[in-house]
Amino acid sequence: MKVSVMGHGTVGSGVVEVILTNNEKIVSRNGLDSLEISHILDLRDFDVPYKDKFTKDFNVILNDDETSVVVETMGGLHPAYEFVKSCLEAGKSVCTSNKELVAAFGDELLDIAREKNVNFLFEASVGGGIPIIRPITKCLAANEFRKVAGILNGTTNFILSKMIKENMSLEQALKIAQDNGYAEKDPTNDVEGHDACRKICILASLCFGTHVYPDEIATQGITGISLFDVEYAKSCGRVIKLIGSAEKQPDGRICARVGPALVNGESPLASVDGVFNAVMVDGNAVDEVYFIGKGAGKLATASAVVADVIDCAVNGSTLRSYRWEKHVDGKLVPADEVATKMYVRGFSSDESIKEKISSVFGNVDFLTRANAPKDEIAFVTGSDVQSVIKQKLEKLDGFDIQSLIRLADF
Amino acid sequence: MKVSVMGHGTVGSGVVEVILTNNEKIVSRNGLDSLEISHILDLRDFDVPYKDKFTKDFNVILNDDETSVVVETMGGLHPAYEFVKSCLEAGKSVCTSNKELVAAFGDELLDIAREKNVNFLFEASVGGGIPIIRPITKCLAANEFRKVAGILNGTTNFILSKMIKENMSLEQALKIAQDNGYAEKDPTNDVEGHDACRKICILASLCFGTHVYPDEIATQGITGISLFDVEYAKSCGRVIKLIGSAEKQPDGRICARVGPALVNGESPLASVDGVFNAVMVDGNAVDEVYFIGKGAGKLATASAVVADVIDCAVNGSTLRSYRWEKHVDGKLVPADEVATKMYVRGFSSDESIKEKISSVFGNVDFLTRANAPKDEIAFVTGSDVQSVIKQKLEKLDGFDIQSLIRLADF
Repeated sequence: MKVSVMGHGTVGSGVVEVILTNNEKIVSRNGLDSLEISHILDLRDFDVPYKDKFTKDFNVILNDDETSVVVETMGGLHPAYEFVKSCLEAGKSVCTSNKELVAAFGDELLDIAREKNVNFLFEASVGGGIPIIRPITKCLAANEFRKVAGILNGTTNFILSKMIKENMSLEQALKIAQDNGYAEKDPTNDVEGHDACRKICILASLCFGTHVYPDEIATQGITGISLFDVEYAKSCGRVIKLIGSAEKQPDGRICARVGPALVNGESPLASVDGVFNAVMVDGNAVDEVYFIGKGAGKLATASAVVADVIDCAVNGSTLRSYRWEKHVDGKLVPADEVATKMYVRGFSSDESIKEKISSVFGNVDFLTRANAPKDEIAFVTGSDVQSVIKQKLEKLDGFDIQSLIRLADF
Repeated sequence: MKVSVMGHGTVGSGVVEVILTNNEKIVSRNGLDSLEISHILDLRDFDVPYKDKFTKDFNVILNDDETSVVVETMGGLHPAYEFVKSCLEAGKSVCTSNKELVAAFGDELLDIAREKNVNFLFEASVGGGIPIIRPITKCLAANEFRKVAGILNGTTNFILSKMIKENMSLEQALKIAQDNGYAEKDPTNDVEGHDACRKICILASLCFGTHVYPDEIATQGITGISLFDVEYAKSCGRVIKLIGSAEKQPDGRICARVGPALVNGESPLASVDGVFNAVMVDGNAVDEVYFIGKGAGKLATASAVVADVIDCAVNGSTLRSYRWEKHVDGKLVPADEVATKMYVRGFSSDESIKEKISSVFGNVDFLTRANAPKDEIAFVTGSDVQSVIKQKLEKLDGFDIQSLIRLADF
């Protein structure tokens, strides 16, 4: 089988490397005749042994009848969307690592793939090399899903781990992440939670059956988190993680969100450190299962893309793509309408502030840390919706809020 | 599609429950016409709402042309083997949770399935509901595997967790496991490592491509482990787990074994407690990925069996079964020929025993624990093959060995 690769960046060059390095093994183990790279699309020039494969013209791939599978590892929405759509419409299967593309156009592209009897696969779009898309759609197909949640961004998890384990400030940790190539020069996408948001959109769409768009999901990054919060979290047996989650509510609607959360120290997610990702899936038959591994990186992500390519090669057009329906209004419930416990940290010079907090919130757990200034107060509220918690906080005259972080229910 | 279930025990009744409970969701999400239970084979009588489905005669299922998929959840080798073989030969796909069957006859049954263009699937045979078989064969298909290892038995992990976390003796913990239904009245299969052995056989066969039989694998259980060993493990930042592993050696042979091992406290496997299972797969592209969840239980295991059933329903005979080759002599290297560090605990009244140990073993790490008797000595050797380590130990006159446990390299 012949496959073309669009985009020879980190992941794309990894795809080529995995196909070339493991070729014999892949071909023999999967009973293929051959697995060959026909063309590589990139506007840049590369001095690599396979440089004769390069083209700068998308039409070379589109019009090559012998190329039945196309890998998209360009990233970004345009022209990735147009190229992928054209390939599918021309009867070629597409395997992509592009979460932005899947989160924005997944339903439409899956529809076209089904119509044309080809595949649109994206195992690499969530969790890098960690098997998660196929496990959800195949291995857990007997379940009604209750929740999907996880640590979906390696950059922020690296930063938080440095803060938690080495008492490093967010700025220092970000600097090290950048120096090691774990964070981009402009880290906004990772640090502000946008990357995790796209991934939870894909997972939510898969688990709950209708397309969820990134702009529907309340998204918060890690920039507000201080070492004081890390310490208070420890004091109550928890760790701060950036969590993306989507959960079915009793009324059938889905609550999806991305933001920092205090995770129970006993949860398998709590000990997932560094650039690792972890996804927890909760189904009504299987209960909770966890998938953990490196969420990014050249070869790990390529491993997932090439798995999709192999699936196309083995199963051709008889392989059924995943399916989810078009977006439905009202399927999501806004995150701030779902009750949750909150961790609150702030300052007050009022000596009776603890009594006031208790009288407004009822029974709360006050937290302590070593060397806290006298006027610093931290506590955990009971479970309530955001608007009520905010109303209550407003009643605390002169209480200067520094942090407000949700407690995960795991 | 019509499916029959052979064996209405814990897992079999779970399969029926999942198919009935989640029927609507399963059918709509996977684009099926229907998913119906045709017959249930069991010699016992059950007073259940679906009791009209029961038969005591295997031929009712074998001769029912409308039944295209058969679930085998009887357990044991006979008559499970004969029934499964007959079903495959009659052109019916079989989905089983029976690890004993797969470990003993996997290659033969896969061959028959391929020949008859039907499927022989066994996602539930390792790790209960945890997706692992399909992830290895599909999602990680681009990798050359280096290692597969894990906590493959929930009963022994429950017992070890109680010892580690609650300082409970092995006997006490086993009693609690039995009272809670986590261990059978005769716990030999679990406690002596036989169950874990069958599972590592299946994982090794999948990852390394030729059938591995249980009797080829050095298998040791947890009965020799004391709370003193647990304490010494803690003192060097490790925890004792029952680990099944199969690893490719530099010469291409596979080293497979089951036994207690001191696992590094930082490993994701170290914090997998209670009845949870965990599998680590290490591939040359993806690096290490972990799969964690409940390794047993009625609905969790049923979740995996029904996933296989759905895959048959969706993909019919175009689904390709997993493949591995027949057993090859010389593919395995005996575990005691592969170098490993060992933890040693023993007694000696010889006051110069530490010097003697150091002179025989070279640099070793001596371990300490609170309240150890004066004549107790514990240490970790350098990496060496078993025969050399044993020869060295024999040189220590009067050293009475109590425990000898391998250090995992993770």
